[in-house]
Amino acid sequence: MMETGETRVPDAEDIRILDTGEIPLLEAVKADGRARVVIEGVKPEVDAGRFPAKRSVGEQVQVEADIFCDGHDVIRCLLCHRRAGEADWHETPMQPLGNDRWRAAFVVDTVGTCEYTLVAWIDRFLTWRHDLVRRQDEKDIAVAMLVGAELVEAAATRAGPAAAGLLLDHTARLRSATTAAASRDAGMDEELAGLMAKYGERHHGSRYDKVLAVTVDPGRARFSTWYELFPRSCLAEGADHGSFAECEQRLPYIAEMGFDVLYLPPIHPIGESFRKGPNNALTVAAGDPGSPWAIGSAKGGHKAVHAELGTLDDFRRLVLRAREYGIEVAMDIAFQCAPDHPYVAEHPSWFRWRPDGTVQYAENPPKKYQDIYPFDFESEDWYELWLELKSIFDFWLDQGVRIFRVDNPHTKPFPMWEWLIGEVKQAHPDAIFLAEAFTRPRIMHRLAKLGFTQSYTYFAWRNTKQELIDYFTELSTHDSREFFRPNLWPNTPDILTEFLQYGGRPAFMQRVALAATLGANYGLYGPAYELMEHEARDPGGEEYLDSEKYQVRRWDLERADSLKDYIARLNRIRKENPALQTDWNLRFHPVDNDMLLCYSKSCMEEAEDGSASTIVVVANLDPHNAQSGWIELPLDALGVDAKRPYQAHDLLSGARFLWQGPRNFVRLDPHSSPVHILRLRRRLRSERDFDYFL
Amino acid sequence: MMETGETRVPDAEDIRILDTGEIPLLEAVKADGRARVVIEGVKPEVDAGRFPAKRSVGEQVQVEADIFCDGHDVIRCLLCHRRAGEADWHETPMQPLGNDRWRAAFVVDTVGTCEYTLVAWIDRFLTWRHDLVRRQDEKDIAVAMLVGAELVEAAATRAGPAAAGLLLDHTARLRSATTAAASRDAGMDEELAGLMAKYGERHHGSRYDKVLAVTVDPGRARFSTWYELFPRSCLAEGADHGSFAECEQRLPYIAEMGFDVLYLPPIHPIGESFRKGPNNALTVAAGDPGSPWAIGSAKGGHKAVHAELGTLDDFRRLVLRAREYGIEVAMDIAFQCAPDHPYVAEHPSWFRWRPDGTVQYAENPPKKYQDIYPFDFESEDWYELWLELKSIFDFWLDQGVRIFRVDNPHTKPFPMWEWLIGEVKQAHPDAIFLAEAFTRPRIMHRLAKLGFTQSYTYFAWRNTKQELIDYFTELSTHDSREFFRPNLWPNTPDILTEFLQYGGRPAFMQRVALAATLGANYGLYGPAYELMEHEARDPGGEEYLDSEKYQVRRWDLERADSLKDYIARLNRIRKENPALQTDWNLRFHPVDNDMLLCYSKSCMEEAEDGSASTIVVVANLDPHNAQSGWIELPLDALGVDAKRPYQAHDLLSGARFLWQGPRNFVRLDPHSSPVHILRLRRRLRSERDFDYFL
Repeated sequence: MMETGETRVPDAEDIRILDTGEIPLLEAVKADGRARVVIEGVKPEVDAGRFPAKRSVGEQVQVEADIFCDGHDVIRCLLCHRRAGEADWHETPMQPLGNDRWRAAFVVDTVGTCEYTLVAWIDRFLTWRHDLVRRQDEKDIAVAMLVGAELVEAAATRAGPAAAGLLLDHTARLRSATTAAASRDAGMDEELAGLMAKYGERHHGSRYDKVLAVTVDPGRARFSTWYELFPRSCLAEGADHGSFAECEQRLPYIAEMGFDVLYLPPIHPIGESFRKGPNNALTVAAGDPGSPWAIGSAKGGHKAVHAELGTLDDFRRLVLRAREYGIEVAMDIAFQCAPDHPYVAEHPSWFRWRPDGTVQYAENPPKKYQDIYPFDFESEDWYELWLELKSIFDFWLDQGVRIFRVDNPHTKPFPMWEWLIGEVKQAHPDAIFLAEAFTRPRIMHRLAKLGFTQSYTYFAWRNTKQELIDYFTELSTHDSREFFRPNLWPNTPDILTEFLQYGGRPAFMQRVALAATLGANYGLYGPAYELMEHEARDPGGEEYLDSEKYQVRRWDLERADSLKDYIARLNRIRKENPALQTDWNLRFHPVDNDMLLCYSKSCMEEAEDGSASTIVVVANLDPHNAQSGWIELPLDALGVDAKRPYQAHDLLSGARFLWQGPRNFVRLDPHSSPVHILRLRRRLRSERDFDYFL
Repeated sequence: MMETGETRVPDAEDIRILDTGEIPLLEAVKADGRARVVIEGVKPEVDAGRFPAKRSVGEQVQVEADIFCDGHDVIRCLLCHRRAGEADWHETPMQPLGNDRWRAAFVVDTVGTCEYTLVAWIDRFLTWRHDLVRRQDEKDIAVAMLVGAELVEAAATRAGPAAAGLLLDHTARLRSATTAAASRDAGMDEELAGLMAKYGERHHGSRYDKVLAVTVDPGRARFSTWYELFPRSCLAEGADHGSFAECEQRLPYIAEMGFDVLYLPPIHPIGESFRKGPNNALTVAAGDPGSPWAIGSAKGGHKAVHAELGTLDDFRRLVLRAREYGIEVAMDIAFQCAPDHPYVAEHPSWFRWRPDGTVQYAENPPKKYQDIYPFDFESEDWYELWLELKSIFDFWLDQGVRIFRVDNPHTKPFPMWEWLIGEVKQAHPDAIFLAEAFTRPRIMHRLAKLGFTQSYTYFAWRNTKQELIDYFTELSTHDSREFFRPNLWPNTPDILTEFLQYGGRPAFMQRVALAATLGANYGLYGPAYELMEHEARDPGGEEYLDSEKYQVRRWDLERADSLKDYIARLNRIRKENPALQTDWNLRFHPVDNDMLLCYSKSCMEEAEDGSASTIVVVANLDPHNAQSGWIELPLDALGVDAKRPYQAHDLLSGARFLWQGPRNFVRLDPHSSPVHILRLRRRLRSERDFDYFL
């Protein structure tokens, strides 16, 4: 068989398209009704190929398909793949899994787009060989040798001189074999099989009717740890408004906690008219800073910087300084305008005007948001508007930003996102877009299909064991995982869940540990999180009291009860264990207590200390009481020898447990540590470990 | 809203295609980036629309899709459907099911092809109305009235004079309302809503990117009862070879048993060379009739009739006479040739020639079938071959045949079947093709997708409770049901299952009762079945001893132990109960005994006697011992009042049971009757029934 990665274009003359919806059937049939192999049921394939699947650099694309022909002939199947724009296809032979299912894989190693498709044909030589060993009648074998010799002789005409010589030798051997045994030996020769795999005919082949695509994102699309903060709350001693410069000072603190994305709410000039006061008050006092999401004033719009934060230069410096800490700065892109945004006067046609001569503000009756004007995407000038909105991304890309958190993308037209993200990724395939759409499932999926790299999820509101199992089973195993990359947030400036309001410190510890281990991508809004900010503005609501959305807050980062060290430990564990850096390897395991959740993530790659990486997490979902129970692990699947003791090393507490067999007892007191993050050590690695066991 | 069935083409100017794979994205976007509604996840849709779904005349096509737009606007969705070739679409408004899922249905009333697609747009008037009732601010309401008046006034320009007048009246009313209450009354007016549904704008609509198709087959495609017999065994007194004329004499017998398809193995001249003797012997004696599947001799091929059976006129008369009994004759089409078939000499290029100058016979080494030459579909003259094979169907269609059972279609090229069946159905949409492919699942599915109307199944080998539940749950509920119509055969001339060999009379009673009630289409091979022929040729094999495939058999149809009356009763029950005439309504129910199988079929249509049709079947799968247990019925789902007694009337035995509640006791002795077929009577229908209960 051909080697994986060998480059050879499927022979244009050999492989003709038949199984296609594009060519009218009769025409296709006339092209070649002898293409007898069917290729269907291909995975991954999102909405029949309408959208690309997603991977990150270094990941595998494992492709499966149902491939078969009529009758009993032996088929060969190739996975063909290439980077978009490459002229040649790489071929990888597919392996049969049984029941007409075939599989092959390729690794994507560069950001951008990869393409793949499938080719299959009836291999007359393999069919001949398959029959030859089963033939018993001597006369029958003699005729078969003549048939085989013809096939091999014909292959010689397709080969270079050296291979052709070998093939002709084999032809002669096939023709001259006189006994059944000699015939069989000649026909089953492995060198001959290898040559025929290369030079055998590929007549009447079928090509899959689609070329499928996979978007290859940077590694951070798969594994990232986000920290959101309001730069205006990065206060210098005595200051009452923060700045990019002060934000730079905060970088060591953020880096020590182990975050690699720093996400800033909008940094643009904030509107003056209808500005909101503290706690969303309709009236403002002098000096009230307003909401950063009320974008635009006489001082500029989406391409300007709020003066009190600093200059564009200051911002660019922050981006570069952050990168020195391994941190990427993520911008917030919110396509909406304060009433005094320059767009309103310069492009009145981009807004909807009411018959009373005013601009239609955002509303969801009876609610009204007079400080925000939405764009009118049904404007006659919609295409100009799109171009301008795209230019906002271009502007910030030019400042060095590569990650964008997009505010409420589900209230802007889907076709715009597909076009806009497509255009941006064409020029900047390393760009990452996080969709902030907390809405109905189909809409969240659509946005992900259209091109958003990562998506916010319902994680914040999944608290019970069954809710968590159902939701994360969907995220990690359903077909939607091909395009929907979850990013888990236990809190955001808009979301202070009831669980955090009333669960105390154990709730904060538990939710961030779940986020950090259930998802390869997670983030939190700080310092509210590590300082366990938990008072809501209204009973039953999820808004923070004295929210930073409307006022500057001074945080005491060194408070003794801060969770910063706990979070730092979680993020270090994530960094050291590849098993926690991917989403699809999540498996839940039984516990005989509904307040305890148990799951594992395994990874074939080696962790830094050389042990294979299997992480088992046990979480007490009850923030008030200690809970205990028996967990049951599928040791075989986790690669643990069920007959020998193994060590479960709690990476959070440092405790080591000597376990044997699948069932083990666990007890978690939320007031000390609501979660175990256990690394299973499958074998004794040192005397020290051994001592520990005893 | 528009009425179902009203004819109006979606306005070409209003509805532009956006969500399409055919038009390059940017071009489509430029066409109209304001088309904000997404249509996806459509069902039924077979392989992304590559193949049609299947229905029979009178059935519903229930179409569902995920339809949504960005933001909070209210959308309207239409199912558009028409017969292929019709210029106009019929529109049926879709109803929301929640979570962005929409549904509508249409009934197919003529054989042929129907097409359907979906259209949706943002309804500005409905959105306006939705907001209006929620508005609280008086000034806000006043502005809203102006907006609404503009929408209504614009609609007047699209309406005829009468409607336009009404719309202008409403416009005036909207403009003149002075109080909030009057405004709301004017805006929420139902007449206005009706007019706006008709004449409101449909700007920026989205059309689903595909037109999907459904093949509408005749009623017998959905509900048919097949009887296979060898006409050469229809013997007159003293004759040693049967005939079409004698077969005619058998029609009353077949009709009395309730069959409506009479399927004949090949009726063509049987090859002389390599003819097989009784029990597949390689040597023949003079007078041995040979296998009907060894088609062709000097006397003719696939368009000729075996002389001893009669003439072509005799055959045509049989077809017409059968129709008088409500029976359609089904032909066996087997694309293979005996060595003396005229094709071999006339079209040598249609066969594969071996280097020794002989024709390649059928083989699957080490097995050899020297009496059969397969066609070489890789011949250079493949297209001529296809045309000739299609002409065989045409020939028999001209003789009045409409049903074809195709022998081993999975050993002929898939593209040929799609082309051939497509061509035949174009001219004869009432034709039915049954695929005799006992092979791997993907292949059976592919043949069904390509156009075969019905398919043989694995039923014959599904004996245990779990096997039956799994397989029939798949057949009746999986997506494959859209194209794969099962036809259940407890036996065929090739298949005498172990269960029938050793299960005695109870096995024969049970398997035919299961076939008749699990599937709307079933058939059996008689008289072997009703006479319980059960001796196998070889131990461990499934071939009949003294198989009719190789010899003429004289059957004693009046034997006292014949199952003909039992089968007649089963088929009468099928005919009288619409619930048994469709496949998708099958539901399995728990029984606390693994030897008892319980399932129901319900139907909203009324049965002949006027009672609603709910059939519950309980089968004892053990052919040797009596079995008993408690069945548990979902009374709510079956429409039975759980608080009142109901009658379970065994349509096989005539026994009536008074049951109450979901759990009831059942005992079945296979030696008297291995199966209950119970009609649930949901209400007392007469004094007599009432007496019975007491």
